[in-house]
Amino acid sequence: MATATRNVKAIIPLLDRVLVQRVKAQQKTSSGILIPEKSLESLNEGEVISVGKGALDKHGKHVPNQVKPGDRVLLPSYGGNTVKVGEEEYTLFRDSEILAKIEEK
Amino acid sequence: MATATRNVKAIIPLLDRVLVQRVKAQQKTSSGILIPEKSLESLNEGEVISVGKGALDKHGKHVPNQVKPGDRVLLPSYGGNTVKVGEEEYTLFRDSEILAKIEEK
Amino acid sequence: MATATRNVKAIIPLLDRVLVQRVKAQQKTSSGILIPEKSLESLNEGEVISVGKGALDKHGKHVPNQVKPGDRVLLPSYGGNTVKVGEEEYTLFRDSEILAKIEEK
Amino acid sequence: MATATRNVKAIIPLLDRVLVQRVKAQQKTSSGILIPEKSLESLNEGEVISVGKGALDKHGKHVPNQVKPGDRVLLPSYGGNTVKVGEEEYTLFRDSEILAKIEEK
Amino acid sequence: MATATRNVKAIIPLLDRVLVQRVKAQQKTSSGILIPEKSLESLNEGEVISVGKGALDKHGKHVPNQVKPGDRVLLPSYGGNTVKVGEEEYTLFRDSEILAKIEEK
Amino acid sequence: MATATRNVKAIIPLLDRVLVQRVKAQQKTSSGILIPEKSLESLNEGEVISVGKGALDKHGKHVPNQVKPGDRVLLPSYGGNTVKVGEEEYTLFRDSEILAKIEEK
Amino acid sequence: MATATRNVKAIIPLLDRVLVQRVKAQQKTSSGILIPEKSLESLNEGEVISVGKGALDKHGKHVPNQVKPGDRVLLPSYGGNTVKVGEEEYTLFRDSEILAKIEEK
Repeated sequence: MATATRNVKAIIPLLDRVLVQRVKAQQKTSSGILIPEKSLESLNEGEVISVGKGALDKHGKHVPNQVKPGDRVLLPSYGGNTVKVGEEEYTLFRDSEILAKIEEK
Repeated sequence: MATATRNVKAIIPLLDRVLVQRVKAQQKTSSGILIPEKSLESLNEGEVISVGKGALDKHGKHVPNQVKPGDRVLLPSYGGNTVKVGEEEYTLFRDSEILAKIEEK
Repeated sequence: MATATRNVKAIIPLLDRVLVQRVKAQQKTSSGILIPEKSLESLNEGEVISVGKGALDKHGKHVPNQVKPGDRVLLPSYGGNTVKVGEEEYTLFRDSEILAKIEEK
Repeated sequence: MATATRNVKAIIPLLDRVLVQRVKAQQKTSSGILIPEKSLESLNEGEVISVGKGALDKHGKHVPNQVKPGDRVLLPSYGGNTVKVGEEEYTLFRDSEILAKIEEK
Repeated sequence: MATATRNVKAIIPLLDRVLVQRVKAQQKTSSGILIPEKSLESLNEGEVISVGKGALDKHGKHVPNQVKPGDRVLLPSYGGNTVKVGEEEYTLFRDSEILAKIEEK
Repeated sequence: MATATRNVKAIIPLLDRVLVQRVKAQQKTSSGILIPEKSLESLNEGEVISVGKGALDKHGKHVPNQVKPGDRVLLPSYGGNTVKVGEEEYTLFRDSEILAKIEEK
Repeated sequence: MATATRNVKAIIPLLDRVLVQRVKAQQKTSSGILIPEKSLESLNEGEVISVGKGALDKHGKHVPNQVKPGDRVLLPSYGGNTVKVGEEEYTLFRDSEILAKIEEK
């Protein structure tokens, strides 16, 4: 579903939720030929846009999340809540659902 | 289902429940043309109307909720208990089901 | 199912159970015209008739319930155990299933 | 299923189990006319015959049950283990499944 | 399934498991007439053959079982692991699944 | 599924896992007549080949397993992870899934 | 699904996740004859490529994983998240899902 807001920066995830934007598959080959959309491979790599303060432990304190804004992450192939902000699609995952960070050196 | 009361202010959520009213999709385009109802995109953005005192921890104390009346929030696309008060529809979610706050600056 | 007893006051809920009677939809319009039963809107508002002592915590103490006899409450649209006492129908919910109190001022 | 024993007093429930006999619906109207069996309303009221020592808490102590032999109780419409002793049918519930006591004054 | 062993005494249940042999329904009426096998009522009464040391609590200690070898017990009508030793059939239940003891005086 | 290794001794179970080989049903009667494979009764008796260090308790310590290599054990008729090493088939169970030890004296 | 990255070393598993590459079945017999792909037996043996810091205990500390990079491991036949990096396929398991280590001496 969509939001009325058109500004993704306005979205502040709660608790252990993490707002992610999936990396889009390249629509051109390296030689510049356009790949038709239905041939594009789906990618489960994304960029963290924003994160909540972390889930509450039993003393009522926030447990810090494992990922932070700007992190490249590996996403599970199921789950998450998809939200459309303006023309872009984002997904909210729980921090513990994020499989891995991707750190190119 | 509906309530006998016609006054939403009379509804005091219990524990970690949060009473939310969904934002309605605009029924006119920016140039003023009326959009037929079936073309309106469903929105998962809402406004918090009232909140409970919070769930009980194991010592019997209320854990404060993450959202407060007046907050703009991002709602999950499933779940919640819908209630009709007069002609308006509201939904009760648990505080931990609310995905994010929306804070336009 | 029904009870042999015909006196609802004889029913003492156990633990965190709450005995509720649903508010009946008005069978006449404000101008006095009778509404046929199948047109009556189902209501999820009820009155608490009696409550148990509360669920047991891990020390074996009763955790007081959130609602008390006489409270107007908002009920979930599913769940509960329905019981017929004489000609009247009642429902037993767990205290934590009650969505909200309704306090008209 | 049935037991080999024909004496219900020989059955000693374990832990938080409660042996209950359902109250039978009256088979005659107040004016003495016999009601055919298929017209009898099923009742969810019963009498507690015997109870276990209570479930074990994490220190290995028995948590006393809420009901005791002789109590009239309101039963859930599902669940329980039915056992036939001689010609009579009984049901074993867990103590926490019993909805309410029925105390006619 | 069956075991290679033909000696039930060799089976030492682990933790909270209880080895039970169901009481067989009488195959003759009191006047000595043979009841055909398909007319025999299934019985949920059994005799405890052997028991484990009990489940482990969180300190790693065995919590003693409620039943002991030789006890007559009331069995649930579902569950358990059936094992054939020689020509005889036995069932392993968890101690907490046993509904009641049967103590004829 | 199979392993690349052909040496079962190389398999070191982790945590509370137990590597078991099922006892094979005898393929000859006592008088030496060969029983065709499809007539062989399936057996749920096995021999423990190796065990892990035990599950971790909440302090991060290993809770010792109930069975040890060489034990004859009674297996549940469902569950476990089957693995083929060379031509032989083995099954990994969790220690708490093992029903009983079998100790012929 | 695939990743945009083509470098598996860039993938840093989070918490108790373990990145594994399955051992491929040999495509030639020992005498050098090529086995057609559909005849290759599926293997549940893999090599650990990288591991997370471990799940968090209730004090917020990482519980070390049971396996480390380079370990040969026995994999369950179900579960895990498969990810394609470049032309190679990898699977992420939780540490506790790994059945055994394989240590050829």
